[in-house]
Amino acid sequence: MMGTGSEPGTVAGPILVIGTGLIGTSIGLALRRAGVQVWLQDLDPRQCELAEAMGAGVAWSHHDQHPSIVVVAVPPGATASAIAEACRRFPAATVTDVASVKEMVLDRAFALGADPARVVGGHPMAGRETSGAAGARADLVDARWWILTPYQEAEPSRVDQVSGLVQTCGAYPVQMTAKEHDRAVALVSHAPQVLSSVLAAQLVRARDEYVQISGQGLRDMTRIAGSNGSLWTQILAANAGPVAQVLQGVISDLESALADLRALDQGDANASERLMTLLSAGADGRSRIPGKHGAAHLEFAEVAVLVADRPGELARLFLVVGEAGINLEDVRIEHVLGRPSGLVELAVQPDAQADLERALRARGFDVRGTA
Amino acid sequence: MMGTGSEPGTVAGPILVIGTGLIGTSIGLALRRAGVQVWLQDLDPRQCELAEAMGAGVAWSHHDQHPSIVVVAVPPGATASAIAEACRRFPAATVTDVASVKEMVLDRAFALGADPARVVGGHPMAGRETSGAAGARADLVDARWWILTPYQEAEPSRVDQVSGLVQTCGAYPVQMTAKEHDRAVALVSHAPQVLSSVLAAQLVRARDEYVQISGQGLRDMTRIAGSNGSLWTQILAANAGPVAQVLQGVISDLESALADLRALDQGDANASERLMTLLSAGADGRSRIPGKHGAAHLEFAEVAVLVADRPGELARLFLVVGEAGINLEDVRIEHVLGRPSGLVELAVQPDAQADLERALRARGFDVRGTA
Repeated sequence: MMGTGSEPGTVAGPILVIGTGLIGTSIGLALRRAGVQVWLQDLDPRQCELAEAMGAGVAWSHHDQHPSIVVVAVPPGATASAIAEACRRFPAATVTDVASVKEMVLDRAFALGADPARVVGGHPMAGRETSGAAGARADLVDARWWILTPYQEAEPSRVDQVSGLVQTCGAYPVQMTAKEHDRAVALVSHAPQVLSSVLAAQLVRARDEYVQISGQGLRDMTRIAGSNGSLWTQILAANAGPVAQVLQGVISDLESALADLRALDQGDANASERLMTLLSAGADGRSRIPGKHGAAHLEFAEVAVLVADRPGELARLFLVVGEAGINLEDVRIEHVLGRPSGLVELAVQPDAQADLERALRARGFDVRGTA
Repeated sequence: MMGTGSEPGTVAGPILVIGTGLIGTSIGLALRRAGVQVWLQDLDPRQCELAEAMGAGVAWSHHDQHPSIVVVAVPPGATASAIAEACRRFPAATVTDVASVKEMVLDRAFALGADPARVVGGHPMAGRETSGAAGARADLVDARWWILTPYQEAEPSRVDQVSGLVQTCGAYPVQMTAKEHDRAVALVSHAPQVLSSVLAAQLVRARDEYVQISGQGLRDMTRIAGSNGSLWTQILAANAGPVAQVLQGVISDLESALADLRALDQGDANASERLMTLLSAGADGRSRIPGKHGAAHLEFAEVAVLVADRPGELARLFLVVGEAGINLEDVRIEHVLGRPSGLVELAVQPDAQADLERALRARGFDVRGTA
């Protein structure tokens, strides 16, 4: 009845996806790619038609048939009731969801009558897409973490089954409690969002001349402040406790920094050492963030090249990189104010740096010395 | 005697550069590029020799001759006394400096006997290089803002003269008071540095599983937390007051956000609107940051392409971009966890988006729909 066909990497259909937005449709596409039968359902028949036209499955009309798993992929605020409803409609099915906040959503679902034995909450860490079936892709969750947050009451075979679904979609299942999940995303995603917004908000009343001289550091730190405020308000509201806890730590450290600065301003040289300790802690924390492919953070070598800011120049640059057989870890283009050229920074493995510089210079590129 | 040859864009030498590190040597190179006579001086004779060998000027040995301008380019902590010393040694010369904090440095210089009529403080906004003559380049300050902070006592012809030096170096002079300068950099550079470090510091004691799921947002926000802590402690110490003032605003807004979150956690729905207002202010502030070439911030169109993570693939991609005659505004490579492919996001002018997508698809690229 349940959990059949749940060897790692495979899942037995049919799967019913409720909510054919970006995530739901992408899950449908990923399952179809693996040959799994998928049914689709959405309050908006046009979204459902679009998802079907994209190949994510077929619109659900099998009122006498039952899915093995229901994937609830509706907006966070509607998830709890949709989970409870799915449990009622399909008394044998396993039910999972994709909401980016877990404890509040799942607690509500159970309060509304969802069956704790059959519900396995989930959250695919699928990047920063916006919304809508139109943006969906079969590979959206490929090689991404997909966090599962089963409650103690969940039947182990149900957990295996959802884990199989995750792997069938090409993602990596990782298990946490709902509480742990919410704390983790509060730390690495939700609190940083608030911080970015608060920093950017300081610019609102700043003089033009001050903002004018902004550099790349401030641009990077305020990038996510441009995100959808309404969506983020919902997310923050649903994870208010854990986010508040992280912000409390941030405020406390900022107050220490502020006290150190005020002491320095009064000539207390000891404050300098305390400030240095704080900056060092930042460097330590930064080094814990995984780099490419989830590996531990590596320091790459950077090669800076000044290139003309016109079509074709970047092509020529990357052609040389490719011909030299060098794999780029990262690329950053820093445009230079008011002139037709840009500084391109190529991050490579340290042992490839010398080769890259040689290859670029041999082809006439203006490689900038790295001090 | 002074101010001669100071039509816009030209400066009369000889110029004496004291301190042949990254900035001093780069200024020497830029002046030599324009045919201006440059003398070099450094406490470390090897740095001076290196700068001379790079073509930044000739080591100063003209004890009977006098420069028209002295450029003090020593570390911030040594700048004030070097300015005062330069005024004493060369009673007719104009004296400028390049320290990234201005009021404290200049006040100290005057307290040490520097001549307010002849000193015109300066700060070239020259990116995020590290240090040493070896990294110097003639174009380091090309098309960058170079802030000048003359005091009221400064003779206007001296200000014109230093402005001519800035333009000769290829930079754009912009005038502010020292106090304004320090407030501006506190807002757009120094306070963001503290914030980045404090956010990154929250990760130090976090569980591995939490840090493991970090995404691009956190990576961007903590990038500058990896900077040289000792250098930054000096900068923050010298600009403690203005940085403290910005941090006070940040803390106050974070406390509001915290209060809203706690209220939301207690079920106060009104807090949601206040939080939304804060996030909107962040989006507004973000939109004030100048984009490429100092123009007002533009929203570029983004085209996402999934490419194999191996040598040559990026070359092929950029070749197509170049052949299509499209100019890239920005490039971001987001590596996908654990699999040999990366998502490349190309930012282009909105009217170029359709052409770019068509060109890439025609050449078999996996262009991701933009929702």
